[in-house]
Amino acid sequence: MLPKRTLMGPGPSDIYPEVLQAMAQPTIGHLDPAFVDFMDEINVLLRRAFITQNAVTLPISAPGSAGMECCFVNLLEPGDKVVIAINGVFGGRMMENARRCGARPVAVEFEWGTPVDPDRVEDVLKEHPDATAFAFVHSETSTGVRSDAKSLCELARRYDCLSIVDAVTSLGGIELRVDDWGIDAVYSGTQKCLSAPPGLSPVSFNDAAMDKVRNRKEPVQSWFLDLELLTGYWSSGNKRAYHHTAPINNLYGLHAALEILHREGLENSWQRHWDTYQQLRDGLQALGIEYLVDPEYRLPQLNTVRVPDGVDEAAVRAKLLNDFNLEIGAGLGPMAGKYWRIGLMGASCTTDHVELCLRGLKAAI
Amino acid sequence: MLPKRTLMGPGPSDIYPEVLQAMAQPTIGHLDPAFVDFMDEINVLLRRAFITQNAVTLPISAPGSAGMECCFVNLLEPGDKVVIAINGVFGGRMMENARRCGARPVAVEFEWGTPVDPDRVEDVLKEHPDATAFAFVHSETSTGVRSDAKSLCELARRYDCLSIVDAVTSLGGIELRVDDWGIDAVYSGTQKCLSAPPGLSPVSFNDAAMDKVRNRKEPVQSWFLDLELLTGYWSSGNKRAYHHTAPINNLYGLHAALEILHREGLENSWQRHWDTYQQLRDGLQALGIEYLVDPEYRLPQLNTVRVPDGVDEAAVRAKLLNDFNLEIGAGLGPMAGKYWRIGLMGASCTTDHVELCLRGLKAAI
Repeated sequence: MLPKRTLMGPGPSDIYPEVLQAMAQPTIGHLDPAFVDFMDEINVLLRRAFITQNAVTLPISAPGSAGMECCFVNLLEPGDKVVIAINGVFGGRMMENARRCGARPVAVEFEWGTPVDPDRVEDVLKEHPDATAFAFVHSETSTGVRSDAKSLCELARRYDCLSIVDAVTSLGGIELRVDDWGIDAVYSGTQKCLSAPPGLSPVSFNDAAMDKVRNRKEPVQSWFLDLELLTGYWSSGNKRAYHHTAPINNLYGLHAALEILHREGLENSWQRHWDTYQQLRDGLQALGIEYLVDPEYRLPQLNTVRVPDGVDEAAVRAKLLNDFNLEIGAGLGPMAGKYWRIGLMGASCTTDHVELCLRGLKAAI
Repeated sequence: MLPKRTLMGPGPSDIYPEVLQAMAQPTIGHLDPAFVDFMDEINVLLRRAFITQNAVTLPISAPGSAGMECCFVNLLEPGDKVVIAINGVFGGRMMENARRCGARPVAVEFEWGTPVDPDRVEDVLKEHPDATAFAFVHSETSTGVRSDAKSLCELARRYDCLSIVDAVTSLGGIELRVDDWGIDAVYSGTQKCLSAPPGLSPVSFNDAAMDKVRNRKEPVQSWFLDLELLTGYWSSGNKRAYHHTAPINNLYGLHAALEILHREGLENSWQRHWDTYQQLRDGLQALGIEYLVDPEYRLPQLNTVRVPDGVDEAAVRAKLLNDFNLEIGAGLGPMAGKYWRIGLMGASCTTDHVELCLRGLKAAI
């Protein structure tokens, strides 16, 4: 029997009890007429969460990393140039994906803990007028930084690039407006601010992105992630074409989580993340714990804070886990050993969570 | 609320209640020390199910189609020649995967409903001494045919080819001996004879296969399915390296399903599938319903039978669904409209299931 934890790391977050119950519903056939209707409902709920009318809005049948790969393998052809902003782990992973597609990635690097600076991106886009895409991370889960997705997507459009946006940690937690901001392609995850188990990656592609996909010279290198096959599979009713067997119970969970989000209201959820972050921030300040990121660019749902001098960071995390059944996250990459990442995502974003975390840290430091 | 069905199609099968309960356990962090131990247990249970000592035996974090793609993208480099046997839908999908890797696939085609003939494969392997891999489907889910995996893998080895075996519908339902038969790479699914929800693809690779992966000239085209990154992620204890967030609750389900399989005993499970098939076969014969496949090559867990003359096959399936909440499968590809596929997989392989199906068919035809 696995222990029951309170999850305040970088994801997964605590899962809503209704979502866990939904996961345990008897599995139905993925071609059952009742399930086809259910998939239509998921499409509608996902469009509301992304604030988009994009027809191609669906959950990839694998975690967020596969959502990232889906964007890259569909939107880039061998030889295509793509500008990629790197201000943390996930920008680096984008580079890796672009290389493996045979694309020519151009990196624009920023200090970890700072946002992507549109001016520096513009300089690079000017230098590379042949670039066809610009990719960046809206919410860098490795550092807790929010970049200005709206400005960056405007910039991409101005330089005739498709924008590819990592919103894994954004969806449901902070403002994200796919249509208003002109995002061409976006991917997210279920285990962050949606508080469903990991295993699916919601994605959305607008017409400009789908035009690029439909006019490819070469087939998409991944059969599993081929968007044209996936859109056939996610088509309504009789037009539906078998592709793969979807993770049916995960879709039950996602459906339940999206319903919870919409009952609360998307903007109310953003506000709750903001309010709860302020409580945590004040409490951490009282403990003398400092943030990595300037207040202006902080993600409320992912708080990267410096381990106080002389404190053994791993020992503190172990004590929280053993004495409080509380998980907080370690630093990733260059932040390892020096920072913690405290998540306030979805079901883990409550006053009770803040209090438990502060009580735990007080005892453990 | 979705209806509760009895699943006797080509998969998913009915899920064991214990497995559904396991899916609803609170999600734990994928880097939690307790979860790392749990992953080790899954590795051990999977090795027992595959009857292998292969170190690299793990569940891919996506459905069976991704397991197939994992084998192809890791074991083939651009320009590699691979011989692929096609005797149903899934051999065709292998061709598609090989092409998208930039490999040179050579098809050996067989009539649908017949097994892969080793003699004809040998002729093709002789004609193509530069082939580096031979791929085939052990249990063709589209037709209900079992091919002789042992002989085919011997043949592959004799011609210096790595064998890639689709065992999606085999695992737990019929004899499958990865080490004894010299299978180099194998993939399966969770939603067939293991009776866990779809969403994971157990795979196993032996040393010969891993040598090929480790000596690649070019990186694997998929980051998400890169076996070296995946083996780092599935390494025990402190050697574990973060790759992606695993579908934790699906792993709960898989663990529970594998425990059920091992409590029953692997050979007992094979026998149960055989015995239950005989009951179904006798009952279908009494109804005058004929099999597509010769008795010698039939899969007990997937029965492809001809729709009697003058019967509207879709109307029968609709009646079974509406009046009995019973799902059976339609024919795929050239079998559409002419055949049904009746599954007896895992938890759906009981005398009660046979009786329900026969009662339903009697009423519906």
